[in-house]
Amino acid sequence: MIAPSGVVTLTSDFGIQDSYVGTMKGVILRIYPAAKLVDLTHQVSPQDVLEASLVLEGAYRYFPEGTVHLTVVDPGVGTSRRAILLQAGPFYFVGPDNGIFTRVLGSEPEARVFAIENPHYRLSQISDTFHGRDIFAPVAAYLAQGIDPAEFGPQITDPVLLPLPLPRRWGNQIQGEVVSIDGFGNVITNVSRRLLDDAAVAGGFRITINGKAIEQIHRSYQDADLGRILALFGSTDLLEIAVAGGRADRRLGVGKGDPFLIELKG
Amino acid sequence: MIAPSGVVTLTSDFGIQDSYVGTMKGVILRIYPAAKLVDLTHQVSPQDVLEASLVLEGAYRYFPEGTVHLTVVDPGVGTSRRAILLQAGPFYFVGPDNGIFTRVLGSEPEARVFAIENPHYRLSQISDTFHGRDIFAPVAAYLAQGIDPAEFGPQITDPVLLPLPLPRRWGNQIQGEVVSIDGFGNVITNVSRRLLDDAAVAGGFRITINGKAIEQIHRSYQDADLGRILALFGSTDLLEIAVAGGRADRRLGVGKGDPFLIELKG
Amino acid sequence: MIAPSGVVTLTSDFGIQDSYVGTMKGVILRIYPAAKLVDLTHQVSPQDVLEASLVLEGAYRYFPEGTVHLTVVDPGVGTSRRAILLQAGPFYFVGPDNGIFTRVLGSEPEARVFAIENPHYRLSQISDTFHGRDIFAPVAAYLAQGIDPAEFGPQITDPVLLPLPLPRRWGNQIQGEVVSIDGFGNVITNVSRRLLDDAAVAGGFRITINGKAIEQIHRSYQDADLGRILALFGSTDLLEIAVAGGRADRRLGVGKGDPFLIELKG
Repeated sequence: MIAPSGVVTLTSDFGIQDSYVGTMKGVILRIYPAAKLVDLTHQVSPQDVLEASLVLEGAYRYFPEGTVHLTVVDPGVGTSRRAILLQAGPFYFVGPDNGIFTRVLGSEPEARVFAIENPHYRLSQISDTFHGRDIFAPVAAYLAQGIDPAEFGPQITDPVLLPLPLPRRWGNQIQGEVVSIDGFGNVITNVSRRLLDDAAVAGGFRITINGKAIEQIHRSYQDADLGRILALFGSTDLLEIAVAGGRADRRLGVGKGDPFLIELKG
Repeated sequence: MIAPSGVVTLTSDFGIQDSYVGTMKGVILRIYPAAKLVDLTHQVSPQDVLEASLVLEGAYRYFPEGTVHLTVVDPGVGTSRRAILLQAGPFYFVGPDNGIFTRVLGSEPEARVFAIENPHYRLSQISDTFHGRDIFAPVAAYLAQGIDPAEFGPQITDPVLLPLPLPRRWGNQIQGEVVSIDGFGNVITNVSRRLLDDAAVAGGFRITINGKAIEQIHRSYQDADLGRILALFGSTDLLEIAVAGGRADRRLGVGKGDPFLIELKG
Repeated sequence: MIAPSGVVTLTSDFGIQDSYVGTMKGVILRIYPAAKLVDLTHQVSPQDVLEASLVLEGAYRYFPEGTVHLTVVDPGVGTSRRAILLQAGPFYFVGPDNGIFTRVLGSEPEARVFAIENPHYRLSQISDTFHGRDIFAPVAAYLAQGIDPAEFGPQITDPVLLPLPLPRRWGNQIQGEVVSIDGFGNVITNVSRRLLDDAAVAGGFRITINGKAIEQIHRSYQDADLGRILALFGSTDLLEIAVAGGRADRRLGVGKGDPFLIELKG
């Protein structure tokens, strides 16, 4: 078992207008007053489990060992979907069993997954609409406090996994997909540095996205003239399309889920 | 006197664009470095004291005993309105005397209210425009540190109370009101589970809101076909109108303050 | 050397949609688990170094002595721009050398500035796109932990300074500029209380902004009839134009960078 660090991160689609997130933090501090709370984001698109999975994958490794990552994007709240927790590498994860941990489980194949069933570790009254407050926040607090994962319920081997939008390759072509747009308007794709490095080492490539062609990888956002469209590998080593000093999403007219093409030369 | 927990929550209409909230946190940490700061929300509609009152009411009980709830929606800053603090149940509250604690005082009739007058517990220079920084944040910090509420000023018995938008009933009809729209577009009303349970036990009911009729209470947001309008009791036991997988506010074309009707049958 | 308080503030243009800010916090807590993290704002306009400079100037003094202010608005990330840290008054500052500390350096002429060069105090892998995570967050954490500023690199005397938009005066006229719009729509200018006090003591003045004239300074936002345009000195002693109970930016049709005129009488 990994010693908890006391850090609990929170990720959700709750937004910041309401007091839902604050309420979860209150519940955590009631149970474990020494918890250190860090928001990843609460601006996940409503009910977009796959997007939450991606946010988590990009950030979880940067936290102290023993951090508990509480992740609540939960369209099935109040239905029979399970609640689960993971011990994955040196981290813990808590959330609904709806595929939200698909990417973490892909990166941490040795992860152990437990169903959350023990009624001792939840609020005494459980609503049908806010398990983030009533079940997941308490479990995160107890984990941060040092309760053994196996205390919460039986280990399971069949967590829900979502089909990931992976790039497809045939012959000299790779078809990729836009997986997110960040706050700067950078267009983040599902093509990793490794995939393109391996593929393009031979003789160059051409990226075509909504009619625009790019034939070069730049190092950073300013490594091109102002206003120019450029491709680079972002901070999580995924291929990004950016515009120096501007927003690539608007310039290219693309959004999450849009496909694009890479042709390999030579 | 309740022993403070060291937790201070912050609620305001300051938004997150400016550094106003950060500045209040700096002031608190200068006075009481061990304070644990939690945001409820800073997205209260500008100067909407009643909305802040509702946010607070839904969240304050979930925090550790001895938590200080700092609440600054303060259109009258710089005028002669009083500054007050409450000891209400096991919690403390700090803010302007403009009705912002109307709902808390309704739920905690044993609350003691004090005027904040002691110049010792504020910054040395007081602006006319930012008492959140200069008066309320210092008082919250000193309360969290363990200063007795009576140290700040005399007890008062006439805090400002706002007329709450309560549902009205005559004969077989209840007229309710939309009190808020949450970040998911759920339409939250002023009709409590208890009121409707008592009233509807006889023979069913019909909710009519902007021309749409609902005759059933569902348990959760997914407890209906995708896209269907449904009614349920939300996480604070108020009647909500929702749309499975969608936004009820847009679908129904309703907003805060809009009335709706419940007809009781039988 | 100033003893660190353990408080680290974070200011950026990263927004709150992505997990960039959360990731920086994870990196800080890994290095220094006792750090207390406070957001100033992450809503600085994208790549607007001067705006970040202003945000910082309005807030940094309100924090405990020994606070580290981490400030990442970094359009030049991945280019040859330097990374710097400041010891300025009783505070530390960390960020890119692009003028972001221009206002702090103006207020703290005794500040010592160091280039960040020591590879020991950064992550082992450095991306070209996210030095906030890979370099600045680690440096902030080590400073908060008590590492001496001189450990990070050589002292320098030529930090980048930006030309500030200062008011210009000739004869009886002052030409000022709108430097920001706050979340309430208040129009904040570059004219300080001192400048106008000195100038207007003789015989009154007239402010003209986009065709509207104001001839009086009010004390607070409610110190005028609802809907009236008024001028006052805000919480950082800068001249603001406001509308009682409304948004001055919309009413006046002005935005950041717009000029306005003050005529001194008598």
